[in-house]
Amino acid sequence: MKALVYNGPGQRSWHEVPDPVIQDPEDAIVRIDAVTICGTDLHILKGDVPTVQPGRILGHEAVGTITAVGDGVRGVAVGDRVLISCITSCGRCEYCRQGHYGQCLGGGGWILGHLIDGTQAEQVRVPFADRSVHKLPDNVSDEAAVVLADILPTAFEVGVLNGRVSPGDTVVIVGAGPIGLAAVATSKLFSPARIIVVDAADSRRKAALERGADLALGPDEDVEATVRELTGGLGAEVAIEAVGIPATFELCARLVRPGGTVANVGVHGAPATLHLEDLWIKNITITTGLVDTSTTPRLLSMLAAGRLTLPGLITHRFGLDEMQDAYDVFSRPAETGALKVALFGEKGIE
Amino acid sequence: MKALVYNGPGQRSWHEVPDPVIQDPEDAIVRIDAVTICGTDLHILKGDVPTVQPGRILGHEAVGTITAVGDGVRGVAVGDRVLISCITSCGRCEYCRQGHYGQCLGGGGWILGHLIDGTQAEQVRVPFADRSVHKLPDNVSDEAAVVLADILPTAFEVGVLNGRVSPGDTVVIVGAGPIGLAAVATSKLFSPARIIVVDAADSRRKAALERGADLALGPDEDVEATVRELTGGLGAEVAIEAVGIPATFELCARLVRPGGTVANVGVHGAPATLHLEDLWIKNITITTGLVDTSTTPRLLSMLAAGRLTLPGLITHRFGLDEMQDAYDVFSRPAETGALKVALFGEKGIE
Repeated sequence: MKALVYNGPGQRSWHEVPDPVIQDPEDAIVRIDAVTICGTDLHILKGDVPTVQPGRILGHEAVGTITAVGDGVRGVAVGDRVLISCITSCGRCEYCRQGHYGQCLGGGGWILGHLIDGTQAEQVRVPFADRSVHKLPDNVSDEAAVVLADILPTAFEVGVLNGRVSPGDTVVIVGAGPIGLAAVATSKLFSPARIIVVDAADSRRKAALERGADLALGPDEDVEATVRELTGGLGAEVAIEAVGIPATFELCARLVRPGGTVANVGVHGAPATLHLEDLWIKNITITTGLVDTSTTPRLLSMLAAGRLTLPGLITHRFGLDEMQDAYDVFSRPAETGALKVALFGEKGIE
Repeated sequence: MKALVYNGPGQRSWHEVPDPVIQDPEDAIVRIDAVTICGTDLHILKGDVPTVQPGRILGHEAVGTITAVGDGVRGVAVGDRVLISCITSCGRCEYCRQGHYGQCLGGGGWILGHLIDGTQAEQVRVPFADRSVHKLPDNVSDEAAVVLADILPTAFEVGVLNGRVSPGDTVVIVGAGPIGLAAVATSKLFSPARIIVVDAADSRRKAALERGADLALGPDEDVEATVRELTGGLGAEVAIEAVGIPATFELCARLVRPGGTVANVGVHGAPATLHLEDLWIKNITITTGLVDTSTTPRLLSMLAAGRLTLPGLITHRFGLDEMQDAYDVFSRPAETGALKVALFGEKGIE
């Protein structure tokens, strides 16, 4: 089969590799019908994630059709159309038993395209298949489903639920990339009073306003003063960090009112300064997290029932064998306007 | 009357001042029967709290007897024996209406011995008396009650409740001063698996073990390795910071497992480094806070019913007019072994 292989920092290739095979009774082999590229893949390609070894097939977000299962797989079968979650789950460890699948100690967690070969390929081996794929309802398309592999549950669990977004809240979302926009969409499930998005890019602020943000602030605006003015001088109840640099985290910490929450979603590569000399007295909660995907079944059923409006994240579509072109477009969002790119296998194109 | 007056950094005096009078219909005047000195008073004397003006009477923890009330006071009356909470509450603002009295916007919050004259005096004026004092059950002594003015609810609300201490948890408490010891006592209400205390002082580690800690670690020990070893390599579910310096906060952040909570109780004067490059993926919660004293009625009734064992914090007792001696003893804990010092008015000595 063909696959996108990481060959060390800055190096990727799309070439022939051996087909995956069942290695464990709980494995499934899935033919890829739709797959996306994640910002994390670009971090890996920069060499920021040293746990990814050269030779690794990247990708952790996909929809596909099961072509083989091990003897221990009971919940899904050959021919099933499934969402492949970015998080796999052993189901047996202390964390899995509490639903904290992202922290799985038994060989799961975020492993696809990280510690084992991933989904940017014609086929993928998915361990612990019963708990790591989700059967798709007929009325949910591949394209709709694929953003539930990572983006939607991440924004919902790590941003909105950790941030405890509540009716009437002022929610500030710093960063209007795919995660920020998915945070806008899933914040709205809790009927906040207003959603304010902060992003340096005009195109992303526009995208946020089109997807339900009430206000979008750019680098020339005094974000702190505006948020204070809109909230009777107090600040926001919730600030969601969806960038991953110290400056945006520290901005979030300044934007929340006493009793407020900063929910960090961004992937950080450097420490931030925590101004405890101001914050110790303010009853602030700060949360971090990798997604558990424990809400994926719920989000899927809401999507199937028409109770969840997707934020329209996929801006560019490719055939699976156009993987390198898709990376080129996704790597230059300022030029291309790309939010998410999706690639479709033969079945998807049919 | 006599009172302890802050005369600017490093300067305090015990001298005659005018008696307090009712200034507002919701005021009460309380004769002080028992009063303590708080670590925060020492911070004020160092000049660390610039909002305290020279001429201010210090103190925010006391028990006394009401000698006068304004026309708007309905819940307490002259002659009532009351606990004076460190937090007063307007009862009308957005924060008070949610029980977040520490963040009161209507002129309450921590004001005694801070923005208005405090309790280290023969009498004190307490604003919003209906919500700022608590009538004491007959079987709760002045000495038992006075630690519920600040220490016990602070350790309980800002440490134990914010930290979500739960049955079976490993709880690490960094700092075994009065707050840390009160956190030991109130953590035990939730039946943790083990309580580990960390403190540099031999005497405080000993005090922690005598008050129910299971293990007390000093500066020569590898705290991180020990906590990991005791928790299957994972770390503590809860770390309570009860010192207030960057190093102890950062230690707490290293001691918690994925999914764990760092509850900051310490009063900080400088920023800490938040290692988001490690923590972003770990589902950590960090909380800060000033006490609301919303749990004080509950703690008082538990104390009266014998369901709460006080940690025995008061090590030194004085007459009210020995205020300067009490400060001298409390300022040198390494020499004197002082945890909390209490001073008793004439009635208390009788």
